[in-house]
Amino acid sequence: MLQHAARPEPGPPAAGNGPRRRSYGWDDPAITGAAARELAGTAFFEALVQGALPPPPITATLDFGLVSAEPGRVLFEITPSEFHYNPLGTVHGGVAATICDSACGCAVHTMLPAGCSYVSQDLTVKFVRAITASTGRLVCAGTVLHLGGRTALAQARLTGEDGTLYAHATSSCLVRRPG
Amino acid sequence: MLQHAARPEPGPPAAGNGPRRRSYGWDDPAITGAAARELAGTAFFEALVQGALPPPPITATLDFGLVSAEPGRVLFEITPSEFHYNPLGTVHGGVAATICDSACGCAVHTMLPAGCSYVSQDLTVKFVRAITASTGRLVCAGTVLHLGGRTALAQARLTGEDGTLYAHATSSCLVRRPG
Amino acid sequence: MLQHAARPEPGPPAAGNGPRRRSYGWDDPAITGAAARELAGTAFFEALVQGALPPPPITATLDFGLVSAEPGRVLFEITPSEFHYNPLGTVHGGVAATICDSACGCAVHTMLPAGCSYVSQDLTVKFVRAITASTGRLVCAGTVLHLGGRTALAQARLTGEDGTLYAHATSSCLVRRPG
Amino acid sequence: MLQHAARPEPGPPAAGNGPRRRSYGWDDPAITGAAARELAGTAFFEALVQGALPPPPITATLDFGLVSAEPGRVLFEITPSEFHYNPLGTVHGGVAATICDSACGCAVHTMLPAGCSYVSQDLTVKFVRAITASTGRLVCAGTVLHLGGRTALAQARLTGEDGTLYAHATSSCLVRRPG
Repeated sequence: MLQHAARPEPGPPAAGNGPRRRSYGWDDPAITGAAARELAGTAFFEALVQGALPPPPITATLDFGLVSAEPGRVLFEITPSEFHYNPLGTVHGGVAATICDSACGCAVHTMLPAGCSYVSQDLTVKFVRAITASTGRLVCAGTVLHLGGRTALAQARLTGEDGTLYAHATSSCLVRRPG
Repeated sequence: MLQHAARPEPGPPAAGNGPRRRSYGWDDPAITGAAARELAGTAFFEALVQGALPPPPITATLDFGLVSAEPGRVLFEITPSEFHYNPLGTVHGGVAATICDSACGCAVHTMLPAGCSYVSQDLTVKFVRAITASTGRLVCAGTVLHLGGRTALAQARLTGEDGTLYAHATSSCLVRRPG
Repeated sequence: MLQHAARPEPGPPAAGNGPRRRSYGWDDPAITGAAARELAGTAFFEALVQGALPPPPITATLDFGLVSAEPGRVLFEITPSEFHYNPLGTVHGGVAATICDSACGCAVHTMLPAGCSYVSQDLTVKFVRAITASTGRLVCAGTVLHLGGRTALAQARLTGEDGTLYAHATSSCLVRRPG
Repeated sequence: MLQHAARPEPGPPAAGNGPRRRSYGWDDPAITGAAARELAGTAFFEALVQGALPPPPITATLDFGLVSAEPGRVLFEITPSEFHYNPLGTVHGGVAATICDSACGCAVHTMLPAGCSYVSQDLTVKFVRAITASTGRLVCAGTVLHLGGRTALAQARLTGEDGTLYAHATSSCLVRRPG
């Protein structure tokens, strides 16, 4: 089976006053989208973690990745970089929001049988500490707090390697079950 | 004065099964970060809108931009693209979260005198409608609901050209005033 | 038709060190609950505003009331009292949360045809200013931001008579439509 | 020392079509408010749990109570009753919001040294399951997720005796430290 490994990119250029440039690639998202509609959550995430399905474009754009997935719990990772920066000289809150949204939604998705789908209805992120390019690798654990017939609730914790909390989020999902 | 115009990039490649590639650039964020610490909010955003200050890296990474700013209100724009996609084949909720976070935070920033600073404490986004690459240009208006001595509250509305609501957000900011 | 007017209660006892006591009444909530299931939203709120249906128990317990309702917009009122106080000597945030939750949910309810029902999924309240028994009468306007097939989004603004903002809230509702 | 035990009230009248009446009492909230300003969080909650300080009025009004408090964690309890009902015939979401707000705020308060104070800035409640008078006793555990110099973050879980989740909440607090 063709392996779609996440494509590592060179890091941002060394700090300085000159212009920077970044180039990255991704695969047709229709491949993974079709698999999401056909597979049970567990099988879908197993294929993503193993590289049998290409990662979605947003993970290439913001350079974060799925580390592991089990029923009700997923783990993502990100290493904050200069291309994540806001006008104030720190990592934009939207980057933490994005990885937390992925962690919450995917945690719910891991528990859905084949034929079900979901959409995120909302995301409440609390920004606990500023993040910069010198913060180093962060991991984001998403866990399911509730899974009902029509809705689900999940939370995410974005932490440093030493467990320091950088952001916390909760998200509600709307679940569609067949029939 | 050197003009740092936002650098337009070619759009995503035509749909298909082949791999895609995107390249983009940005400037040293320290330039804009230093200006944010020195200028009053109104002067800072005037410089950003006119291109006298380089846009922050995150706007290049996610390809969104500031359209206008006045005291208590800012407008951003984005045209959703394939590189914003999640594993389900739609634009990732984090993209809407990012532009809403910018709109809320910048709306507060426009009202701060020189010497003040702020940080976003949280963001609550409601995803009202799915967004895809065929949705077309969206605008995101951020407005201030309350500005106090230590905190501020703002909201953002992400809408289509015809006013259709795609996302709504509120955000609290912590304000630091000198002395 | 029997009129179920809201029953005014005497205000809290004058401040002082002695114990206080409050007594209040309400009607069987099954009457109003049955009407909610049978009537269209507009007819249901017309009956509540006119006193043809008894107000729900929570409005007697916390002494707040419905002032007006039209499609997509409702207005509640409350006069903060000592029996709303938290351990810090101000009105408990839950009182603002309760009236905001009512305003959001009822705004959505006004737009539902007969045979539909809804439940509140969440409430995000921002507490903008402290409220005490000397704050005076507050009004809470709930308005619908989005009404879809399965979900709705509303916001509430809790303000003083002069328009000063005391709290802001958003709430998502899950809508059930027949058939 | 005078003991201010929570005053148990008779439960709601048996269901039926007749009018209901409830009477309850509380003590001058200035006593507890003054203690909150003077004592460290741990001492303040020890006095509240032991009945050496009168419970705040809101706990009498909505009939919920503090069970235990330790640094970073508090437990409240409530038995849902008819006087908590909304117009739809279930317990109003504001009741869950109120006990969750207390749990979050008090968890933060337990960790503050004497001379510090805090205010709740916001509350995000997720209503997971409907609550009625037949649900039985619920407990609400508040825990601190982060305590910083100027802000704190806490979460609350409202659960049944068997651990079933009824509501989840997060809340940010603004902390004032002396000097």
